[in-house]
This record gives sequence, structure tokens and C-alpha cells, in this order.
Amino acid sequence: MKQNLAFLITALALSYANPVVVAYAADPLPSWNAGKTKSAIVNFVEETTKESSSKFVPKAERIATFDNDGTLWLEQPLYVQLLFALDRVKALAPQHPEWKDTEPYKSAIAGDIKNVFAGGDNALSEIMMSTHAGMTVEEYDELVKQWLATSKDPRFKRTYTQLVYQPMLELLTYLRSKGFQTHIVTGGGIEFVRTFCEKTYGIPPEQVVGSSIKMKYEYRNGNPAIVRLPGIDFIDDASGKPIGIQKFIGRRPIAAFGNSDGDLEMLQWTDAGRGPHFCLYVHHTDADREYAYDRTSTVGKLDKGLEEAAKHGWTVVDMKSDWKTIFPPIK
Amino acid sequence: MKQNLAFLITALALSYANPVVVAYAADPLPSWNAGKTKSAIVNFVEETTKESSSKFVPKAERIATFDNDGTLWLEQPLYVQLLFALDRVKALAPQHPEWKDTEPYKSAIAGDIKNVFAGGDNALSEIMMSTHAGMTVEEYDELVKQWLATSKDPRFKRTYTQLVYQPMLELLTYLRSKGFQTHIVTGGGIEFVRTFCEKTYGIPPEQVVGSSIKMKYEYRNGNPAIVRLPGIDFIDDASGKPIGIQKFIGRRPIAAFGNSDGDLEMLQWTDAGRGPHFCLYVHHTDADREYAYDRTSTVGKLDKGLEEAAKHGWTVVDMKSDWKTIFPPIK
Repeated sequence: MKQNLAFLITALALSYANPVVVAYAADPLPSWNAGKTKSAIVNFVEETTKESSSKFVPKAERIATFDNDGTLWLEQPLYVQLLFALDRVKALAPQHPEWKDTEPYKSAIAGDIKNVFAGGDNALSEIMMSTHAGMTVEEYDELVKQWLATSKDPRFKRTYTQLVYQPMLELLTYLRSKGFQTHIVTGGGIEFVRTFCEKTYGIPPEQVVGSSIKMKYEYRNGNPAIVRLPGIDFIDDASGKPIGIQKFIGRRPIAAFGNSDGDLEMLQWTDAGRGPHFCLYVHHTDADREYAYDRTSTVGKLDKGLEEAAKHGWTVVDMKSDWKTIFPPIK
Repeated sequence: MKQNLAFLITALALSYANPVVVAYAADPLPSWNAGKTKSAIVNFVEETTKESSSKFVPKAERIATFDNDGTLWLEQPLYVQLLFALDRVKALAPQHPEWKDTEPYKSAIAGDIKNVFAGGDNALSEIMMSTHAGMTVEEYDELVKQWLATSKDPRFKRTYTQLVYQPMLELLTYLRSKGFQTHIVTGGGIEFVRTFCEKTYGIPPEQVVGSSIKMKYEYRNGNPAIVRLPGIDFIDDASGKPIGIQKFIGRRPIAAFGNSDGDLEMLQWTDAGRGPHFCLYVHHTDADREYAYDRTSTVGKLDKGLEEAAKHGWTVVDMKSDWKTIFPPIK
């Protein structure tokens, strides 16, 4: 960072002394190793943002969409939001004495995740609804914020918002500096991600598309309240992603970033755009510094997506060789 | 406009010559008559955007939401989108020979609007679905754009995008110049409004919340397509407005602008915010230059809203006395 600053100051000083000198820009992606992945990103951004370029895209149309789990932050060994839900079951257990004899709560309280999963989608859905509904949107926001501030990943001994990918943070900042809008399009809960996206990614809540449960507007103690209800409103995954993009953003992205088969339709929709566009998969190949998984993983499976990426010439990040560092320094 | 420019140039020249001189800003709301309505708006904007003010609101939280029909553009004698639907029935009639003997199509084709309405919500819903679904999002966009470019209101002899309210256009621009985000929150169709909001209001598609029908992602001729389906997804009216705001924007507005009882919950939700906030109703009081209607109107009924506005001290625009002009000059 200090070195970049020095570059910048020198460049500014030079351009001040002699306005004809082209400012020497510091590397906007310092955590990306030089190579074809980094070049593909920079080339796309340069050619779509230079007015003289034949591939120039007007600022209003520079929509970039990012998956969250496994693309911007850690998703192994389990999705962070699911860890939150399991912890909420434990916290709520005293108010639900019946849970200690009822599955999937019994297993969740005992920390037997494998047995919770054995209950299938119904068990997971029940846990999600009983922990994510029944409160106002403000109460939910507060619960998630408190949990994120205090819970740590046991392997990395970091809070979850410290387990975001440094190279992707740089990419978000780089794109925004070039006039792109950076939207999150997540299979996870929209309100869950909204609790931390602004501080962590620089992405405001109104630029998050995600899965949602139903809500109700009512009066509580004489004041209007929006209450979260135990029922699915929208699943923003797989073919739900292009639908969510159309619904919330109303424009086709020109750049899309994902890491799993759940992002495939978002990338296909972006790839089918008439103008210049860019599709990228983050491939988790680094078991030492993070995790290595793809075709057979239960979380973040990337199988069909790898075939499609090869077929369409999409950029695939090899985490191990393309990224100098995985996580940001702890402040 | 020329006069404003002259003011601005003088102000800039003065402030350049003597940086201590406070720049004399041109009136940002020239179509608003001086008085308590205009002062209420300007005071709220000034006190929430000056860093030294006790009511200062950070830029990211300056969310302003606007109803569309009757607040930003004409809604009498019928909602513009309904006029589009009725014209579509006529255009599609040759492909549906059965329509000439079936209500509500028979009446729609005959131009007997009164009889269409006699069929109630079911009749209207059938007309909306058969004219708004079955095509891709791009095809729909094109249909609406073509219709808006060629259809005119018979009384004013203007296209509908020329029947927007000049004072509200100035208000949108003024708010954005002060770092506010201006979002539309409409009971009308989100994709209908998205076809013209950027050009007409300077509001991009991603800042529109509205009613929607279901959509499907599929392959058509080997390309991914998003197809509009004949089924309601979300009704963004009345208590749906705060829900839509939470869903799409994820923050409570600090300013809300409406004109009917369908906007009441949006104003109540805004009014219940803990920080500084501003609620405004446009009251249609000018039968000569536009229309005069409120408590008994079928379109844009404003009854309970007027009581609530008085009770909570919300600002009420008296169109006749507060607005110097109604519609913009035709370019």
C-alpha cells in the first residue's frame, strides 16, 4: 500500500509539473499475479471504458454482478448463513423446550450437523424459517450484526467478514473506479448480506439481489413495522439469478462473477448479451491457503460450469496460481 | 434557463474573484411559487445535507422515494399503463377472433371503457395478463417504447412522457444535486416504468420498485431468454409499498412523495423513521391546467391521506397555487 501511494504521489507530482505527462497509474489489482487471468480482466475493463474504444460501454450500462458465497467470501465447510442459523437454534433452545426431543433441532443443538443434513431440504428449511422469521427487519439486522461481530471460523480464527477474498475486494474497487456498478447476486438471504455488504465490500444494500422470505407490514406498539414471515418469497439461485437480476436491476450485466453451478445461468445470461461482456469463475484450487473443491463438492459444486467456461472461453481464476494472497490483512 | 445560467456564471465569477463570498445559487425550483410548500422542501434539503447541521444525514442514507402515477406524471382520466393495455387488445384482436364475442375484450375493442370496468378486477386482470405476458422482456420493452413514442393524450395533445410534472422534474434534479438517490415506488408495472424513466426522469431502471408479473428463464432458438408469464408476482401498492422498499432498496427512505391513499403506508413508514424525514402529498387542485380530484376519485383517491397529512404535519402541494407551470415545454 505504501508503495502504491508513492507511485501515485510521484505520478501526481509529475502530471502537475508537466500536464502533458500521462499519469502512471498504480496497479489496481496488486494481489493478482501477472498472467492471462489478470490481463483478461484489465483488458476488458480498459476496452469497455475508453471512449475511443470500439467496445466502449456507456457508464449507465456498466453493470457487474457478483455471487457472494465462494466468490466474495468463504463458503466452506458450510455457508456462513447456515452457521448463523445453527447458532440461533442453540440461542433460542431455552424458549423451545420441545426442541430437545424434535429433529432437526435435537441434532442442531447437539452440534451434529451431519444428522441435520440427513433430514434433507425440509430439515434445513425448518431451521432457516424458525431462526430467520418472526422478528422485524431491524431486529433481524441487529441479530446478524451481533453474531458476525463475535463469531469466528475455527480453522482461520477470523470473523467471517475477515474471510473475504482480498483479490476480489481489489476487483470491486477497481471496477467502481472505472464507473461500473457492482451488484451482489446471491443465493443467500438478501437481508443477511445487507447487514455487512456496505462496510465489507463497499456495496450498498440497494445493490444486493438475493433470496428472500415473505414480509408483512403491520403496526406494533403504535408504530409501523415490517415483520419477517416463515415462507419463501424468492430463491435467487441457478435460473433464479437472471430472473433476480431482471427484477431488481432491470438491465443485463456486462460482467458476471461466480464460483459454482448455481451461478451458471447468470453467466450464460451475461454471455448472451449483444455488446461486450465478461464472465469469470473463481475456481477453488488452494487447499493450503483456503480449500480445493469443484465437481463433487456438496457446497459450491462447480461441474457443468467448468465445461461451459471452456466451451465459451470464460475466464477461470486458479486461486492457487492467480492470487498472491487470499484474505485481507486484519485491521 | 438562460437567466439561471447567468446567475450561476455571476456567482462563479464572484466566488473566483473572492473565495470568501458565498456563491449565490440559482433557484433550483423555478416552477415552484414562493411560499410554505417550497420553503418546507428547501429547508429539509438544506438541513439534512449541511455537515454542520444537527439534522445532517450521510449521503448513503439520503433515499427519496416517489410514487409515479399522479405524482410524477398524469393519471387521469385513466392510468397510462391501462391505456396501453386497451390499445394492445385492439392491436392483438386480429390474432384472437374469439375476442369479438367475449368480455371484457369485446368492450375493450369497442372502446367502451365503462363496460370493461363493469367487469371488475377480474376483467382488468384478464386484460393486463393477455397484453403484458407471453413475450420476452426485450420484446415487451420494445412494444411499450413504440406505444409511448406514438400515442397522445386527446385533451393535451401531448405524448404521455410530455405529461410529466415540470415542478417534480426540478425536484428530482434538485435532490440528486444534493446527494439524494431518487427511487420510483409505483403501483404500476416495474417494467413499464423502466422503459421511459431514465430518459424522462433521469432515474435508472435499477432505481424503480413496482408491481410485477412472474418471469421464466428459458432457451429460445438456442439463446437464453426471460419470458413474462401471466401471473402476479408482487403488488407494489398500499402496504406493498413499504414492503417493496425494504425488498428492493433495503433502507427506510428519509423523504417520500405521493398523491393518493395508495401511497399512505409509504409515507407512514417514512414518517416513522427515527432521524430527520419529509413526507409530501401532491394534491390535484387544478381543473383548468390539469385535473381536480381527491376524496371521491376512482383513480388516485386521496381521502385518508389528507387526514393523516394534517395530523402529522406533512407537506401538501396545492397544485393550483404552488406550481407556476404543470408540464414541461415541448422540446
